[in-house]
Amino acid sequence: MSLVIKDAKIIGKDGRSDVLIEDGNIKSISEEEEGEKSIDASDKYLSPGFFNTHTHAAMSLFRGVADDREFWDAWPKVVWPLEERLEAEDVYWGTKLACLEMIKTGTVAFNDMYFFMESAVDAVEEMGMKAVLSHGLIDQNDPDKLEKEIESTKRFVEYAEKSELVKPALGPHAVYTVSKEGLEWCADFAEKEDLLVNIHLGETKKEKDDFKEGSHESFAEYLDEVGLLNERLIVAHCVWLEDEDHSLLAEKHVSVSHNPSSNMKLGVGKPMDYGAMKKKDVELTLGTDSAVSNNNLDMLEEAKIAALQQKMLGDATLLSAEECYEMLTKKGSKALGYGSGVIEEGKPADLILVDKDVRGVPEHDIISNLIYSMNGYSVTDVIVNGRLLMEERKVEGEKEILQKASERAKNLVSGVI
Amino acid sequence: MSLVIKDAKIIGKDGRSDVLIEDGNIKSISEEEEGEKSIDASDKYLSPGFFNTHTHAAMSLFRGVADDREFWDAWPKVVWPLEERLEAEDVYWGTKLACLEMIKTGTVAFNDMYFFMESAVDAVEEMGMKAVLSHGLIDQNDPDKLEKEIESTKRFVEYAEKSELVKPALGPHAVYTVSKEGLEWCADFAEKEDLLVNIHLGETKKEKDDFKEGSHESFAEYLDEVGLLNERLIVAHCVWLEDEDHSLLAEKHVSVSHNPSSNMKLGVGKPMDYGAMKKKDVELTLGTDSAVSNNNLDMLEEAKIAALQQKMLGDATLLSAEECYEMLTKKGSKALGYGSGVIEEGKPADLILVDKDVRGVPEHDIISNLIYSMNGYSVTDVIVNGRLLMEERKVEGEKEILQKASERAKNLVSGVI
Repeated sequence: MSLVIKDAKIIGKDGRSDVLIEDGNIKSISEEEEGEKSIDASDKYLSPGFFNTHTHAAMSLFRGVADDREFWDAWPKVVWPLEERLEAEDVYWGTKLACLEMIKTGTVAFNDMYFFMESAVDAVEEMGMKAVLSHGLIDQNDPDKLEKEIESTKRFVEYAEKSELVKPALGPHAVYTVSKEGLEWCADFAEKEDLLVNIHLGETKKEKDDFKEGSHESFAEYLDEVGLLNERLIVAHCVWLEDEDHSLLAEKHVSVSHNPSSNMKLGVGKPMDYGAMKKKDVELTLGTDSAVSNNNLDMLEEAKIAALQQKMLGDATLLSAEECYEMLTKKGSKALGYGSGVIEEGKPADLILVDKDVRGVPEHDIISNLIYSMNGYSVTDVIVNGRLLMEERKVEGEKEILQKASERAKNLVSGVI
Repeated sequence: MSLVIKDAKIIGKDGRSDVLIEDGNIKSISEEEEGEKSIDASDKYLSPGFFNTHTHAAMSLFRGVADDREFWDAWPKVVWPLEERLEAEDVYWGTKLACLEMIKTGTVAFNDMYFFMESAVDAVEEMGMKAVLSHGLIDQNDPDKLEKEIESTKRFVEYAEKSELVKPALGPHAVYTVSKEGLEWCADFAEKEDLLVNIHLGETKKEKDDFKEGSHESFAEYLDEVGLLNERLIVAHCVWLEDEDHSLLAEKHVSVSHNPSSNMKLGVGKPMDYGAMKKKDVELTLGTDSAVSNNNLDMLEEAKIAALQQKMLGDATLLSAEECYEMLTKKGSKALGYGSGVIEEGKPADLILVDKDVRGVPEHDIISNLIYSMNGYSVTDVIVNGRLLMEERKVEGEKEILQKASERAKNLVSGVI
């Protein structure tokens, strides 16, 4: 079915346009287009949707269970014991809950690493979003465990490859939870199967100190040594990296997912060094991390917090609204291997409409208003691969998702928190 | 007219209640109340509304004009020249725009300092909010200017005293823009007329360095010397204070308005030392500052950013969601001299209803969800002094305000930005 967005103010473009969408792509943009279904955008902005490059969607079931505590306190005592209880059905409803929130706040695609990921594939397919999903591979230096994790990973990749909307990826959890052999296997398998790889890196000082004790040179050199440091890799956090790491990440075209809210809320001690990375031309994107450490998945809020966090220590010119907007859209899309994130003929139609409301007035600078004044709730309509997932803030099946996710979550935490 | 909120889940209280409002106050809370008008709150939370203890409402006309620049660059070059152009009619529509945004995000009362404040009184009265308003007194050490400013201040106070909803206050701008004589006059006049006093203090390092060069001991000692340091005073920012300042602020029961978004966005260099102030029992509240340095007036967003900012440098336990909630409600109300901020029989009915939506699911911790997951757009209904200002997200006169404020703003910046 063809869909036309009528009379739209495209952010960054003068005047108003009609945008015709056919077969999932932007077919044409002109002053006058007609389609089978039409959306009036005359009092809204049209923008590429947002790309959340690091989250753990199903953890939305645990929203609010680990607040105001350090990572190394809350995770071992609360989050990991809760995760021991997880079943496939929990991940299914948890992922649906997260997708619902992401759609409602303008996210069109996300990068996820977790467990029971076949269920996450089902959830994403049903919700209509796009996602890069990976099974979180953790072997704790145990060869038997690694063997099982490789099996799980292969099974998941095979399952996900059948999906239209999900790209399977590999998810070696971190350098402190996966053996060298495990990382090397991931590097080889990713190359062979042409898959993206998703890893946590340098989130806490403890991670760095422990790593240095293991007589390694630097995080990035180690990832290079095991064969992971290339354009397939998306590294999350990157707070406790050094300048030589930044250089290597840039040189090898690795994508970084910056997760400021999570880093701040967990008290990791300092901001990721955005300024240094930008100087080296590292590929920078934004992610919310999970709802346990954020506690929402609102990419516009994440962008504002990212900018404020960088400026806070003294340089108000660091990380402008324009740069945030690029990270949310074009750069995020590139990191996840989609050709969208821009509004151009022939590109996938991953689009959102935004209500300017009181926070968009006055209209001195639309991108400033979007990043610094509005938030995800300003989004009214979401289109992914040309399909309308939210119309006038309504998403199909919302009530059932909220009810089922609530029930699963209540049962999971019973007796733990 | 009596108003009853039916079947409400009051935040912090078990079960569900009916809340009867009469003559502006909470008349009774029980399982079954009846009133002339009734609001169904069965799928919402009932909370005290929020108190924004530092803003410059009319500056909403300048939203987005000074982004990604230092204060001492953007203010002299952009903001102050724009302010030179302001007329009373601008302040009227700018304040209405800000009130509209505050109502839509759950704020019931605010503390404001600006110019043409008679127009702000009219705007507040018409919008139905409560406000502590002050004429920003600036004399730049010029006795003639001080005399004129005293006249303006007296005229404003006389005008505002007729208002039902506005409390006039005094607004000596800062220690670097007002002479010692000016500050002393404010202290005397405030005592004589029983008025609150609103001042900026220790926002930037430059302010502190300049102040120290003037051979003063400490900010707080100086304010004490001029007679301002007492329970009437609300000091904004307080970033570049020292521990002896904190002790004096606590001892004299001064209220502090913490403005984290503004401090971060303007790159003031470090967070206000919340931990040190809390230890000394300083009265702490939250303010958004103006839409130029924020760029919105959303108190729930401000609270989340406050918590993240404090935790960021290493202590994730600092400034919990519960503490944020108290600052937004009870503590904010106390600082502005209202007896509300709590839901109790006999208190002024300054209340909001909140839609839990997807961000309030699951319901492990309602206050956590409110502070860390939701934002101002989660608010659906706002009641001030018992009067319903927003019902199901609709505010009277919204369209005209957006249109008029847009026009005034466009004319103001024409040729400047």
